[in-house]
Amino acid sequence: MTVYKAPLRDYRFVLEEVLAVEQLAKLPGFADATPEIFAAVLEEGSRLCEEVLFPLNRSGDEEGCTYENGTVRTPKGFKEAYDAFCAGGWTSLACDPAYGGQGLPYTLNFCMEEMISAANMSFGMYPGLSHGAYRALMMHGSDEQKSRYLQHLVDGSWAGTMCLTEPQCGTDLGLIRSKAEPRGDGKYKISGTKIFISAGEHDLTENILHLVLARLPDAPSGTRGISLFLVPKFLVAADGSLGARNGVRCGSIEHKMGIKASSTCVMNFDEAEATLVGKPHSGMRAMFTMMNSARLGVALQGLGLGEVAYQSARAYALERLQGRALKGSAAPDKAADPIIVHPDVRRMLLTMKAHNEASRALACWVGLQIDIAERHPDPAERDSAEDLVALMTPILKSYLTDGGSEAANFGVQIMGGHGYIRENGMEQLVRDARITQIYEGTNGIQALDLVGRKMPVHMGRLMRRFFHPVDHFVAKHKAIAELQEFVVPLAKAFGKLQQATLLVAQRGLADPDEAGAAASDYLKLFALTALAYMWALMAKASLPKTAGDDAGFYLGKLATARFFMTRILPQTSSLLTIISAGAKPVMALDAEGF
Amino acid sequence: MTVYKAPLRDYRFVLEEVLAVEQLAKLPGFADATPEIFAAVLEEGSRLCEEVLFPLNRSGDEEGCTYENGTVRTPKGFKEAYDAFCAGGWTSLACDPAYGGQGLPYTLNFCMEEMISAANMSFGMYPGLSHGAYRALMMHGSDEQKSRYLQHLVDGSWAGTMCLTEPQCGTDLGLIRSKAEPRGDGKYKISGTKIFISAGEHDLTENILHLVLARLPDAPSGTRGISLFLVPKFLVAADGSLGARNGVRCGSIEHKMGIKASSTCVMNFDEAEATLVGKPHSGMRAMFTMMNSARLGVALQGLGLGEVAYQSARAYALERLQGRALKGSAAPDKAADPIIVHPDVRRMLLTMKAHNEASRALACWVGLQIDIAERHPDPAERDSAEDLVALMTPILKSYLTDGGSEAANFGVQIMGGHGYIRENGMEQLVRDARITQIYEGTNGIQALDLVGRKMPVHMGRLMRRFFHPVDHFVAKHKAIAELQEFVVPLAKAFGKLQQATLLVAQRGLADPDEAGAAASDYLKLFALTALAYMWALMAKASLPKTAGDDAGFYLGKLATARFFMTRILPQTSSLLTIISAGAKPVMALDAEGF
Repeated sequence: MTVYKAPLRDYRFVLEEVLAVEQLAKLPGFADATPEIFAAVLEEGSRLCEEVLFPLNRSGDEEGCTYENGTVRTPKGFKEAYDAFCAGGWTSLACDPAYGGQGLPYTLNFCMEEMISAANMSFGMYPGLSHGAYRALMMHGSDEQKSRYLQHLVDGSWAGTMCLTEPQCGTDLGLIRSKAEPRGDGKYKISGTKIFISAGEHDLTENILHLVLARLPDAPSGTRGISLFLVPKFLVAADGSLGARNGVRCGSIEHKMGIKASSTCVMNFDEAEATLVGKPHSGMRAMFTMMNSARLGVALQGLGLGEVAYQSARAYALERLQGRALKGSAAPDKAADPIIVHPDVRRMLLTMKAHNEASRALACWVGLQIDIAERHPDPAERDSAEDLVALMTPILKSYLTDGGSEAANFGVQIMGGHGYIRENGMEQLVRDARITQIYEGTNGIQALDLVGRKMPVHMGRLMRRFFHPVDHFVAKHKAIAELQEFVVPLAKAFGKLQQATLLVAQRGLADPDEAGAAASDYLKLFALTALAYMWALMAKASLPKTAGDDAGFYLGKLATARFFMTRILPQTSSLLTIISAGAKPVMALDAEGF
Repeated sequence: MTVYKAPLRDYRFVLEEVLAVEQLAKLPGFADATPEIFAAVLEEGSRLCEEVLFPLNRSGDEEGCTYENGTVRTPKGFKEAYDAFCAGGWTSLACDPAYGGQGLPYTLNFCMEEMISAANMSFGMYPGLSHGAYRALMMHGSDEQKSRYLQHLVDGSWAGTMCLTEPQCGTDLGLIRSKAEPRGDGKYKISGTKIFISAGEHDLTENILHLVLARLPDAPSGTRGISLFLVPKFLVAADGSLGARNGVRCGSIEHKMGIKASSTCVMNFDEAEATLVGKPHSGMRAMFTMMNSARLGVALQGLGLGEVAYQSARAYALERLQGRALKGSAAPDKAADPIIVHPDVRRMLLTMKAHNEASRALACWVGLQIDIAERHPDPAERDSAEDLVALMTPILKSYLTDGGSEAANFGVQIMGGHGYIRENGMEQLVRDARITQIYEGTNGIQALDLVGRKMPVHMGRLMRRFFHPVDHFVAKHKAIAELQEFVVPLAKAFGKLQQATLLVAQRGLADPDEAGAAASDYLKLFALTALAYMWALMAKASLPKTAGDDAGFYLGKLATARFFMTRILPQTSSLLTIISAGAKPVMALDAEGF
């Protein structure tokens, strides 16, 4: 009973009418990245998502991955779908043409990642992880590593992984125990056990490139002693041909709450042959390259799940007949009215819609900054864009995944008992979405990243990359009568965000627990303000177009913007009060008192 | 990795030190229901829950129920556990001694229901449904029905069900199509299909008594034409012996997100022999007897799941070593600090603790009112207690189940990736908890019940049953210096609740959509105020006892009360603002615009 059509109209609105995506085509190497090409690629991609990936989502969940003797089988149809995915060039979209990539913007990749996750999140994990490995090697690998490996990641014939977590260490990578010993020939032997390795083993590709964090013998303790290594499943000769099986095996796969068609592996490294990626002891930097890219990918998973949950709940609410509208029947010819007449059902649907559409705009805005950060000829523009990406990454990861889970849960709620039945597909979205709030750094860790790392940089320089455009927008539009219903609430929320920022920064300097205790609520306040900014931008873009808006597209945007401003954004008041309450009520109770 | 110990100390605190449970022993027939008996029964019950039911929870989820040819098998160990449950007299606790019951207070049953649900919610469904059938027959059955059936429900040898839902009707029971035809001998033939019937078929008991809503031939349309029938699985002779199999069969069981060890059945009635319960066309009233009892039971399921999630997350947070406290190491001799040092982990744990403990107090307070409503010699006291139960039922059902789901999700979040792995048990709590927000009336329906049914009764008479004691408490304690940190926030929240009540009542009169659009947020505002009242009562009871509080029990209560008042209760501000925004933003968008 889940349904999914890629939101192509909404991408055009966000990209062309709100965010001026045509600016990308002016960047070096992006001459082809016109809005027309964007639209054409997304339409082509939407067909793959709707027709190939989406139909495998339910069956993939029921069947799951299976493990036998070190090998992992993905569910029926996944291999064929993956081959079609590669053949369509979808692994190579934003990759460097020097290695066979299509060199298209990241912004486009963002949209595709949302669609793939909406259609089949488990499937999307495999190419998603490979792309993270591509980026890490692209940025930190040697020329030899690049020329030997990258083309295979780009064409999808090989896959990649990130091997970070160990049984005793998840969040705290300083506790890593996996060892790397130099062999004396420039290569290394890796030994240790990694857990929770997504796509660690599967049957989709000829080879798998594991990017592994481990310690060299002379490594200092903690995170400063971690190095990154490349460990191929099958050794690769200089001519690219596959050689012997390397000393890495999948010991088992986890039985999980969701994403059952994505293999989550225990990987045992037993003197596996490895090459160093980057410099010794600088693995954390390379890891953060993968991690930041992965965090944005996870944010888009959250958004994708939110979208498919919304569309499915909407379809159900328009069809399911139950009860009558409170003011009298809306469909007197039928046995009952469709449940979309009920205010509480509308409240849930509008919350999902308001969240999804503004989140999409925010994600695309950040996607644009990635392209600007990589390509813009002006270094100041590049820096500014890079700052904004760094600032918004934890916010997107945390808020879009919380929103995805909330939307999936609303979807179940709207379907009632039918939402709880597995074959109807909605409860799978809840189970799949649940991991997005955890992996690649829990949402609590994202909040700490925001207040502890991003906020203090250069006395708030990153913060100003967001504050300045909002300030500018408010100043420029606050006197325009027809925009006031959007700009005034935005300005109020923004004021609260500025107050909270000052408060958290000041108190946090004196006592880091103050920043820690405020972090999650502060991130939420920030995210709500950012979504309000997006809704104000979207309302501004929609207002002049309501005349002759036969499809009701722009009127729908305005109604949703009003809902957001009046029924969601007021949460910011309570968040500021709660942040102001400080750390004492959180820290007072002794550990034994819990 | 889940752990559970029944919160016996907390029951004593709530019952003896906060709610004066000794008053029960003064009610007619309750001479034995002393605090000592309460404590002894709960301790005995806790052993069953911890040692028999809890160990079957994880295996029950993995194995689930199985269906073959009309029969349903519960998971391994369930039959033996059920036999022990009956042998211990746990099916008969609050039942009438005239039918073999122990005649103990409902308050006690409430505590047991929480413990059973915490230990094994799926298991608890079977006796829970039977008890609902017991109550319906007790209140609406004929003397003959009572004498023929009740003793078997009381001793647990037979079970009961509630057969309401049909494929085309869940919330809207007016759409029921199942038919009842008089046979001419005082009995009826029932035909139709019921879905989502919990415990509809299983292997725990010799017989199953189905309470079935159906229409007589002359029935008016809608809910006024529904009658309640009793349909035994095996026909029962006057001497109580079992006869032929009746025309009711389980067609299949559902594959669900959770509560997998509880059978959820499609039940096909094919001219099944039935007797009428109560009068023709008055089935809705009898149904509400079962439903209200079931709603309170579901509230206690939510609380139980919240408690086991809290205890399990606490155990993990005290053990798991990861990272260092922000202010420097708390356990420098270890590789890392236990994660309970982190403010954001404490925030989640304290939210769970603050919610669970106040919810337990609120549930016990309402449980007491049920006993008073049934037993008090003064009719005015009975009426007042009955009003309070009616008012608080939707609030408990909705808020305690939302809280249970939130707690289970926090539990997963605190365990990180390990929380997502099935064998660790925490994700099962999320899946099990999810149904509590849906069945026996979705939480949206509870909110509508509150604003649409309970609020208008006798110009707010039900509301005053809650408002008056709070008003009285605030007036009496607001000048006491050491209580002000609790009473002042309570008074503020109460003021907002009064404002919102006036607003919703006034606007709702003019436009029912206004009440509908406010309902869920209003219920939340009400629930938060009720929990604040409980925390103020608990703080008052704790304050004089902090000297010599070696176990830190009372200091823990005060710290948790402070956390609630400063970090949770402020949500009430935003809720009032959102309620005040009215229905327009919710209703403006056309159905086609979604």
